[in-house]
Amino acid sequence: MDEVTKSSDMSYLDSLLWRYATKRMTGEKLREDKLHRILEAIRNSPSSFGMQPYEILVIESNEWKEKLKPYAFNQSQITGCSHLLIFAYYNAVTSDHVDAYIQRIHMQRGSSIDSLQEFRENIQESIDKRSLDANQIWASKQTYIGLGFGLVAASLEGVDACPMEGFEPSKFDQVLGLEAKNLRSACLLALGVRDPKDKYAKEKKVRKNFEELFHFYR
Amino acid sequence: MDEVTKSSDMSYLDSLLWRYATKRMTGEKLREDKLHRILEAIRNSPSSFGMQPYEILVIESNEWKEKLKPYAFNQSQITGCSHLLIFAYYNAVTSDHVDAYIQRIHMQRGSSIDSLQEFRENIQESIDKRSLDANQIWASKQTYIGLGFGLVAASLEGVDACPMEGFEPSKFDQVLGLEAKNLRSACLLALGVRDPKDKYAKEKKVRKNFEELFHFYR
Repeated sequence: MDEVTKSSDMSYLDSLLWRYATKRMTGEKLREDKLHRILEAIRNSPSSFGMQPYEILVIESNEWKEKLKPYAFNQSQITGCSHLLIFAYYNAVTSDHVDAYIQRIHMQRGSSIDSLQEFRENIQESIDKRSLDANQIWASKQTYIGLGFGLVAASLEGVDACPMEGFEPSKFDQVLGLEAKNLRSACLLALGVRDPKDKYAKEKKVRKNFEELFHFYR
Repeated sequence: MDEVTKSSDMSYLDSLLWRYATKRMTGEKLREDKLHRILEAIRNSPSSFGMQPYEILVIESNEWKEKLKPYAFNQSQITGCSHLLIFAYYNAVTSDHVDAYIQRIHMQRGSSIDSLQEFRENIQESIDKRSLDANQIWASKQTYIGLGFGLVAASLEGVDACPMEGFEPSKFDQVLGLEAKNLRSACLLALGVRDPKDKYAKEKKVRKNFEELFHFYR
């Protein structure tokens, strides 16, 4: 497929082929409803225990983008995008996080706190038996599920996106004051509109062949 | 929403609300075309440098599922699912992997090997400057993007799914002989059909509120 324009009757697989890591963006702002649905898809992504051990910063202003750009190797999509999402995981997972989650289940589902006690202990035990590092890795991985949900949702909305690991997390954390919030940046998702002149827009997607990637145990 | 039946005119957000981590499955086999499209969605998920530093085992037979079940705390979806996907990352990322990737770009896109030399060096440098551990974490994270793509695709197909970290990776690696293949299991995706009697099918999804999860920098 070398369609650059997304049409509304594309299958979801066609939308996934339409998408590519868009580095040249026009600066155009996304429609609010499209952005909102992409964020809702991310919000509904699953995570270990359902705990969502992260928060997401949504960078909208040029001022903030300019502050961050030098720490993302001056890549043009930082300022060319409409919205830059920063997935930031819990640096230290605390019992307060677990309590807040149990409280959330209680509020949203109406389960009694008592009935959630065993679940609470399971989560706490699982966190306690891991080192600080291992919990950070665990929390950080969960953001990548959200990143995946965001990328698929964007493609279905006809919104261009670029997933990014190419930045200096500690610098981002500094600029955004994340340390004081017990958060650390994990990965980025730039959302916006592709520059139609971008040569990569028409390049064939390179992927492992089906037989290279999947091995059936029959 | 408490619809248990997926209808074809659901929006993608409704499909994401329809899905839940399905633990009780009926053992029913998925239609081949649905499975194929879900795998194609995963195959087209992005990854760092586009390198896809992982392979995916697709467990289909009861015999293999029974061998693995004890090492996933005997959770019923291991045998109740139609297909169990095991995402397995490169244990050690080697220059052979980088060469194979460069070769793939050459074959699929027609770029000359010469023109890819700088890209090749960038990737190799980025791998070399990280420790073995850090590369494993990097590779493992990429599988979670694929996991996200697989989960969304399954929901769009009306296929039930359960993402899983609750298993003993080293035991899985042993049973499947992954060490000899320089692979390590990262996470699982069970695909199948929900048991309609499963009480969790009708439970409200618990998620952070929009304002808790997203922070706008305007």
